[in-house]
Amino acid sequence: MLLDDLAIDDLAIGAAFLGSGGGGDPYHTRILAKAELAKSGPVQLIRVEDLAPDALVAPCGWIGAPTVSMEKLPNGQEPILGLRKLEQILGRPIDAVLPIEIGGANGLAAVVAAAKFGVPVVDADGMGRAFPESQMTIFNIRGLSSCPAIITDAAGNVVTIESEDNLAHERIARAISVSMGGIAHMVEYPLTGQQARSHAICGSITAAIAIGAAIREAKQQGGDLFEAVFGALRRSNVYSSAGVLFDGKIIDLECETKHGFSMGRVLIQGFGNAGEMEIVFQNENLAARRNGELVACTPDIISIMDRETADIITTERLKYGQRVKVVAAAAPAILRDAKALSIVGPAAFGMEDRYIPVEELNNWEGKSV
Amino acid sequence: MLLDDLAIDDLAIGAAFLGSGGGGDPYHTRILAKAELAKSGPVQLIRVEDLAPDALVAPCGWIGAPTVSMEKLPNGQEPILGLRKLEQILGRPIDAVLPIEIGGANGLAAVVAAAKFGVPVVDADGMGRAFPESQMTIFNIRGLSSCPAIITDAAGNVVTIESEDNLAHERIARAISVSMGGIAHMVEYPLTGQQARSHAICGSITAAIAIGAAIREAKQQGGDLFEAVFGALRRSNVYSSAGVLFDGKIIDLECETKHGFSMGRVLIQGFGNAGEMEIVFQNENLAARRNGELVACTPDIISIMDRETADIITTERLKYGQRVKVVAAAAPAILRDAKALSIVGPAAFGMEDRYIPVEELNNWEGKSV
Repeated sequence: MLLDDLAIDDLAIGAAFLGSGGGGDPYHTRILAKAELAKSGPVQLIRVEDLAPDALVAPCGWIGAPTVSMEKLPNGQEPILGLRKLEQILGRPIDAVLPIEIGGANGLAAVVAAAKFGVPVVDADGMGRAFPESQMTIFNIRGLSSCPAIITDAAGNVVTIESEDNLAHERIARAISVSMGGIAHMVEYPLTGQQARSHAICGSITAAIAIGAAIREAKQQGGDLFEAVFGALRRSNVYSSAGVLFDGKIIDLECETKHGFSMGRVLIQGFGNAGEMEIVFQNENLAARRNGELVACTPDIISIMDRETADIITTERLKYGQRVKVVAAAAPAILRDAKALSIVGPAAFGMEDRYIPVEELNNWEGKSV
Repeated sequence: MLLDDLAIDDLAIGAAFLGSGGGGDPYHTRILAKAELAKSGPVQLIRVEDLAPDALVAPCGWIGAPTVSMEKLPNGQEPILGLRKLEQILGRPIDAVLPIEIGGANGLAAVVAAAKFGVPVVDADGMGRAFPESQMTIFNIRGLSSCPAIITDAAGNVVTIESEDNLAHERIARAISVSMGGIAHMVEYPLTGQQARSHAICGSITAAIAIGAAIREAKQQGGDLFEAVFGALRRSNVYSSAGVLFDGKIIDLECETKHGFSMGRVLIQGFGNAGEMEIVFQNENLAARRNGELVACTPDIISIMDRETADIITTERLKYGQRVKVVAAAAPAILRDAKALSIVGPAAFGMEDRYIPVEELNNWEGKSV
């Protein structure tokens, strides 16, 4: 499959939805991707099955605070510097890239990197959504090493981390991203084709494109925009149940850029007598509580969308007064076992809640599924 | 010349003096050095003239807050990991190491690295004293590149920085050192033999040993300990004038570990009617004011010593009630020109004072010189 301008538009919207509020708003990255495609032609999207077992696959994406990424734009060379360095370290060419996270701008960033570097992008990612920390990948859950990892910035600085401890890598990489101005590009978890095939979350790029296409088509045809998203999720091989958690107006917002993240909480007042919903976030929306009661939490996807246009509002774009629907979707099943939950579940974020699947919390069985 | 146990003892004392309060107290490093010498035998100290023009020389030392280094001890592998990585990157063996700064524990750390790595140490360093930031070297003043630089920690993490901007390197390295727990080892400013010969501050290790030996001998012979230090400085090829700035008791101390440094100020009340001296520090003592009037400032060396034993009290060991003499010594001449002062003078630390040589400020001409 070839990714053209229309696919980029759809991917930008679908990736923003899957970002669970994080991964960065894809606005700039969509423009960058189109500019890049105008030069390079369409980018090839390949399946993991197309990879030779010993192929070299480079997951990549941006690390930092989305609040910073709105103002500090890339100069475009960051992924190239990182990918070249990885080739130099490993002494062999890279065969394909994949987004370390499908969610937000990072779902598109790998397409930009692929176009610039002249390699295909694999229809897969490392998170099935977006998570704030680099060890929160399926590759770490499955025990693969994150290193060598290469962080680069717009000034041409190249930093290579070699560590046997994926958590130490995250700690060091986060500090570096802050010292580089709060946002930086990272190539990490270099994979063989076989490892990508066995462990990556496969099909997430086409799923994101399908979500974007569903919203676009529903807008053209006047259908229900939210039902269009839910349908696309159900038809994908990666996602399943989804539904609206809340409908209301943002009446309070706290957000600060701290420890290299965008952290805060948003309070939404429901229409009628629906009460209030509070959502806490660390780059990504982590947990949603309706009148104090948990109704969705990580790793399930929680996205805040404009209630009229279904535009996805990433955390750094939240504002007082926005009228929104809060939508949740079940995370891919492989993020829900005990090992995965220890790395991406509520406890990994210091929350005391026990993880309960969003479809159970909301009695969606046989409803939206 | 061979560095044996006695040379290590003398070097530890002389390096502590030249540290201007920084570089870390050499207590642990002296023990480590002796343990290492017991295994490896004496370490060879060579002159820059002994280096082949195309030799590879690796300056090394610890980066971080001395307050942290008192509690977080090295495991000994840090310099080896860094030196090996440099050899791997450059594809050739390292011929010798030198201390990036002669001051404090870092004056000895290069000897430990040399013993462990089985190479000689060059009788030279990059600062002629200690400075808190990595761009504050004669190599940066002379326009050499600091990279590739390799930072390593006790957990075996290896981070390589490649940057064309020595100040960006410092900013990134500082963040990494904090993420590694506040102290880390760094190999940086890789030099050819020719570069070491042209730019390093030559003879600083033998000068430090001579200072330590002078104090040791004066203790044995009952001579004036401070005059012994001044004599050793005058006889060296690196240093010149020196003298006592103040004699008193520490009556106030502020110190915090901030931005990866030990930062603060110490207030000393003079005996009799001598008034007060205030010294501000960022790892190193930066400026001394007697009754509000500047009497010494960076790059001149300001060391606080026990007034009875002449033990050097590094900034992290300052305590209320210590009875001390504040001693200053003229920095090597090459740190005093306009280019050097822009990088290591008072303005580089945000101080408004114009740099005036310590011997002028104190009318030492024809006195201590």
